[in-house]
Amino acid sequence: MRFTSEQRLDDGVLERAFTLGEIPGTLWTPGSAPAPLILMAHNNGLPRREPRLVARARQTAAYGYAVAGIDAPGCGDRPRSAADEQARADLRRAMQAGEPVDEIFESFIGPLVEQAVPEWRTTLDALLALPGIGGPVGYSGWTALGIRLAVAEPRIAAVGLFAGGYVPRAQREEARQVTVPLLFLLQWDDEGNPRQRALDLFDAFGTREKTLHANLGGHTGTPWFEVEDGGRFFGRHLK
Amino acid sequence: MRFTSEQRLDDGVLERAFTLGEIPGTLWTPGSAPAPLILMAHNNGLPRREPRLVARARQTAAYGYAVAGIDAPGCGDRPRSAADEQARADLRRAMQAGEPVDEIFESFIGPLVEQAVPEWRTTLDALLALPGIGGPVGYSGWTALGIRLAVAEPRIAAVGLFAGGYVPRAQREEARQVTVPLLFLLQWDDEGNPRQRALDLFDAFGTREKTLHANLGGHTGTPWFEVEDGGRFFGRHLK
Repeated sequence: MRFTSEQRLDDGVLERAFTLGEIPGTLWTPGSAPAPLILMAHNNGLPRREPRLVARARQTAAYGYAVAGIDAPGCGDRPRSAADEQARADLRRAMQAGEPVDEIFESFIGPLVEQAVPEWRTTLDALLALPGIGGPVGYSGWTALGIRLAVAEPRIAAVGLFAGGYVPRAQREEARQVTVPLLFLLQWDDEGNPRQRALDLFDAFGTREKTLHANLGGHTGTPWFEVEDGGRFFGRHLK
Repeated sequence: MRFTSEQRLDDGVLERAFTLGEIPGTLWTPGSAPAPLILMAHNNGLPRREPRLVARARQTAAYGYAVAGIDAPGCGDRPRSAADEQARADLRRAMQAGEPVDEIFESFIGPLVEQAVPEWRTTLDALLALPGIGGPVGYSGWTALGIRLAVAEPRIAAVGLFAGGYVPRAQREEARQVTVPLLFLLQWDDEGNPRQRALDLFDAFGTREKTLHANLGGHTGTPWFEVEDGGRFFGRHLK
């Protein structure tokens, strides 16, 4: 893991860009150490430098967590293929037109989840080797990847998942194998995530300790107090 | 309002029983004053001295709120008629047998909500006349009464409602007139409150600032962190 830039923010949080082989990422650490680690992933369409993701990561770090995000293949700072571009464009067009998107979604997002898992595990190994960063580890964000990681990676001790209306079939099925504490956050009127599917997914999780938070509004309208609620959820399970 | 007993608790909260005409109640106030007031009501089957209600009131007071609860007619310390007893027994029997309870519920609970409103408004007048208790005022608990009070009583500035699977028709209809901030809490497997009805009710509220919290488990299984979340919700709107 090689740090390529660093910036100290007003609240004492240290923000460092890194590369790990081909993987570009950012690590935010609070002034106080050691800090429990939260892996903050997002649906692959979004670069890790997206301002609202950065703001969420910074605020979470300010609560006393180490937070890491990486760009997935074909996303953010990484080269993207013409085939990726086409698949993303097809998916966007179909969603905007209100067409059924399950099959496009399945064939495009399913493999992305599979590819993301080894990269996140490699990143996790490297992060836990740094001084001042400890376990147990939390995961926050992209629902499909969070399910896969919670099942595959025993170091993940709690997951906070967002949205979850569209999740590949494989992850919908393995949701019942997730047994770590879960905070499931959704937007009641999320234009891209059918509400009933998200509620059905919440119902399917195997964990006994699961909480649903829903707020009025569209996909990007999550109120800021949910970042704080997420910090408190992780506080109950990681500290 | 006449105080009939008082007890100082370990965390500095003062717990006082009172009577106001025929209405018996309890007021919990934090060590620090002045404190925003939260009216804590519960479904009429439960006396205000029920240990888990008392524990919730004490914990809420410890967060810096004045909290008040009263016994409704036919409940707790108040005389109950043979007709009340019979109606409650009918309702319990029908629910336990899994029979449709809407009509029994409507004819029994509907009038209880109507009777409770003037008693709570009288109590509110008396409480706000006490030194160290201020507005704006929050409401926490019984869903049907909370809807009625939020519509009828302009001093109510935020409501935290629990369960909500069975709510009289009149309150289901006036839910869309509720415009104050709402925290709607439900138990995912509440044996007495059908989940879909509760979710439909959440959907119906007219307020733009509404949040749903749901946790796994039955009616009495709400985790304790929800009391703290409730305190934080009121903190955003009453302080």
